[in-house]
Amino acid sequence: MPALAINRDRLWSDLMTLGCLGATPRGGSDRLSLTDADRDARNLFVHWCAEAGLAVTIDAMGNVFGRREGADPSLPPVLAGSHLDTQQPGGKFDGPLGVLAALAAVRAMNAAGIVTQRAVEVVNWTNEEGARFAPGLMGSGVFAGKLDLAATHATADRGGATVGAELARIGYRGAAPCGGRAVDSYFELHIEQGPVLEAAGRVIGAVTGSHYMLYLGLECLGENGHAQSLPQARRRNALYGASRLVAEIEAIGDAHAPAGTASAITMDVWPNNRINIAHRAVFAASVVHPAREGVEAMEAAILAAMARIADETGLALSVVSRMRRDPIVFDAGLAEETLRLAAARGHSAMPALTRPGHDAFNLSAICPTALIFVPCLDGVSHSELERASLEHCAAGAEILLDHMLNRAGRAN
Amino acid sequence: MPALAINRDRLWSDLMTLGCLGATPRGGSDRLSLTDADRDARNLFVHWCAEAGLAVTIDAMGNVFGRREGADPSLPPVLAGSHLDTQQPGGKFDGPLGVLAALAAVRAMNAAGIVTQRAVEVVNWTNEEGARFAPGLMGSGVFAGKLDLAATHATADRGGATVGAELARIGYRGAAPCGGRAVDSYFELHIEQGPVLEAAGRVIGAVTGSHYMLYLGLECLGENGHAQSLPQARRRNALYGASRLVAEIEAIGDAHAPAGTASAITMDVWPNNRINIAHRAVFAASVVHPAREGVEAMEAAILAAMARIADETGLALSVVSRMRRDPIVFDAGLAEETLRLAAARGHSAMPALTRPGHDAFNLSAICPTALIFVPCLDGVSHSELERASLEHCAAGAEILLDHMLNRAGRAN
Repeated sequence: MPALAINRDRLWSDLMTLGCLGATPRGGSDRLSLTDADRDARNLFVHWCAEAGLAVTIDAMGNVFGRREGADPSLPPVLAGSHLDTQQPGGKFDGPLGVLAALAAVRAMNAAGIVTQRAVEVVNWTNEEGARFAPGLMGSGVFAGKLDLAATHATADRGGATVGAELARIGYRGAAPCGGRAVDSYFELHIEQGPVLEAAGRVIGAVTGSHYMLYLGLECLGENGHAQSLPQARRRNALYGASRLVAEIEAIGDAHAPAGTASAITMDVWPNNRINIAHRAVFAASVVHPAREGVEAMEAAILAAMARIADETGLALSVVSRMRRDPIVFDAGLAEETLRLAAARGHSAMPALTRPGHDAFNLSAICPTALIFVPCLDGVSHSELERASLEHCAAGAEILLDHMLNRAGRAN
Repeated sequence: MPALAINRDRLWSDLMTLGCLGATPRGGSDRLSLTDADRDARNLFVHWCAEAGLAVTIDAMGNVFGRREGADPSLPPVLAGSHLDTQQPGGKFDGPLGVLAALAAVRAMNAAGIVTQRAVEVVNWTNEEGARFAPGLMGSGVFAGKLDLAATHATADRGGATVGAELARIGYRGAAPCGGRAVDSYFELHIEQGPVLEAAGRVIGAVTGSHYMLYLGLECLGENGHAQSLPQARRRNALYGASRLVAEIEAIGDAHAPAGTASAITMDVWPNNRINIAHRAVFAASVVHPAREGVEAMEAAILAAMARIADETGLALSVVSRMRRDPIVFDAGLAEETLRLAAARGHSAMPALTRPGHDAFNLSAICPTALIFVPCLDGVSHSELERASLEHCAAGAEILLDHMLNRAGRAN
C-alpha cells in the first residue's frame, strides 16, 4: 500500500493562521501560556479538531486531546502533539508545528478512510514554554506524574495570577483527570532550534537524546549608597560585580563554541532606582554542552571568574541555586524507525541530540517516545526571526504520520 | 543675650525614635514615600508639633507645616525643615535631621520664651527621595511652582498606585493649597552625604551651590533567542552588551575619582526569563563632577566605550534619555552668615558644595535659602550604614536655630 499523503498546503495555512494569534510586527507570535492569545489558539485548535471529527477532552491542567477512535477503544492510544504557547516574543513554529502536523496526519487518515486498531490522539500540552509560569513542560509534567496538580495550580506568575485561576479564566480548567491513564506511545515533531541539520543538509533528525544542561542562579551583594554622592572608592556596586561576571560568562560560552553555549540570561537589581547604588543583583546563567566534561569545564571557568571578580572588587558573589539536567535517552527502536521511515519517504536524515527540553522528555518516562526534528533557519528559535520551510514541515509531518499509523495498527 | 541652647539629648532621642519607624536589621530605615511607615512618621511629627504648641497645616501635596506664630502674622514666615521619607533601605539622618533639628530650634525658642516678629514654620516635604515616585523633590517642587499639582497627583509607582491616591489613603491629602504664598526664607540642615567635611575635620559646611550632574538613560537592543540552543556565534545578547558598558562606566568613574563619580545604577531586561537570550536591556548611569569639563569628559568616555562595545559585539547601544543638572547657586549672604554663626558658636566650618539634590534647590527659586551640612561617616548615605554623631547633629541644629532667629527677628 502506498504511503499516505499529507496536505502540505493546509498544514502551512494552519501554521500561518495560528501565527496570526498574538502576531508581532516582525513575523513572530506572542502567546504566553494562559493569556487571551493562548485561549484563542486553543479555541481554534478545538475547532479544527471538531472539523476533523475528533472527540475533544480537556483535562484539569488544560491539556487538550483530540481523539480519533480506534477499532478497539480499550487499547491505550497513540499520542502525538506538542504545544501552542510561545515565548514573548516567539515564532510560528516552536510548538505549533508538532500539534498541527499531528492534526494533518489525522486528516490524512480520514481522507484515506483508514481505521486504526488503537485510538490516535492529537494533544496540545499546557505551558511548555515556562515563560510566564515556571517550570515549563508543565502540562505534560502533571500528566506524566512528575508534577503535583494542586501545587501546579497554585503556581503564580510575577503578577500573582495563578495557573489554576488563569485556566479557569480562559475556560480551560477541564473536568477530565490529568494523566493516570495508559498511553501506548508518544510522537512529537519539532523544529531543531539548532544549526546541525541545516549545516549537514539533512531534512529529518531522529532524536536519540539530549545535551547536558546547567542552570546557575547567581547573586552579587554590595552596599546601598547615594549614586550622586558616595565617594567612588567607597562604592560597592552590586550591578557592577554582576555585570563583570555576565561579560565573562559570554566569553566562556564563546570559548567553548560551537559545541557548547553559555550566556547570562536574567538580571534583577535592588533598589533599581535612579538615585542609588545597587546593593543586590540576582542573575542567572544557562550552560549547555553535549559532553559532561564540557559543562563541567564551563562551570569551573564561571566559578573561577566569580572568585576573581569578587577578589578584585570586594563584592560578594555566589551561586544561590544550581539545576543540572543530565541527558534524557529516547527509545532507541523508535529513533531507528525514524531513520528508516525517512529513507522510505526519500528524505535525508540523521541521528540528532536536542539542546532544549520538550514535552517528549516527560512522556518518555511513561511510554515509548520519539522526538523528530526538522531544520530551522540559522538555528534561531524563541524569536520573531524563527523560520522553517513548507517542504521541511511537510516532510516531518509525513514521518509523524507513518509512525502514528505503524504504532496504532491498521484495522482495515 | 547669650546663644540659645538646643536640647541635644532630645534631638538625638527624636532621631533614634523616628528611625524605629520602618527600621531595618542593620540600623537603617525603610520609609518609602506614602507607605504606611511614612504615614507613621508623619503622625509622630504631627504629634511632636502639637506637643511644641505648633499649629499644623497639611497641603494638597501632603507637605506638613508646624507653625509657631510671630508677633506680626501678616509677615511671610521663615521656613525650616527637610523630609521624613527614606530610600529603601535608607538611614536615620538623611532627611529627618533637618526636620527634627528645626523642631528642636522651635523648642529652644519656646523654652526661652522668645516671641519672633515673623512666624516660624517647621516643614516636612513630601517625597524628597523619589525612590518610589519619580521625580524626587516632589512636594517642594509643587510648592515652589516647578511641578504641576494635578500631573504630580497622577504620577504612579511601578505597581500603578498614584501619588494622589496614596496621599488620600494615608490621610495626608490636605485641604490647604500647595504653595502660592509668600515665604521669607528657607533653612535646611542635612548630612553632607560626601567625605569632604570629615576629611577636612570641619563640623559645619556652608553650602554655596551644587555639582554638575548628568543622568544618562541607556538601552541595548539585541535579538531574542533560545538560551539553551541558539548557536553561540548567532547570539545577540542585550544583557551582555549592557553589562560590558556597566563595567566600563564604573571604570570611568574610578579614573575621575575622587572629584568625579560615575556608576550604572539601574537595569531592566526583557524577557528576563530563564530560557531566553535578552533582546532588550534598559539601564542608566549617574555622573557627577564639580566642574563642567569633568562631567563632559566622563560623558565622552562613556559614549566612546558605547561605540566600541557596539562595534565589537554587533549590538545596538544608544542613549535614550539625557538629563543634565547645572549647579544651583545658593544665597551668598546666607552662606557667609552660616560661616559667621559657626565661628560665633565655636564650630569649625568651611564652604561646601552639594552633590545630591535637596528640597532647598526648589525653595531657592522663591526665597533666600541656606543649606547647612554636617559630616556623616565615610561619606555614606542612602544606606543602613549611614551614621552621624550627636555632637555634629547638635552643632548643626544650633546654626539652624541662629539663622531662624536672625531672620524671624526678636519681638521681645
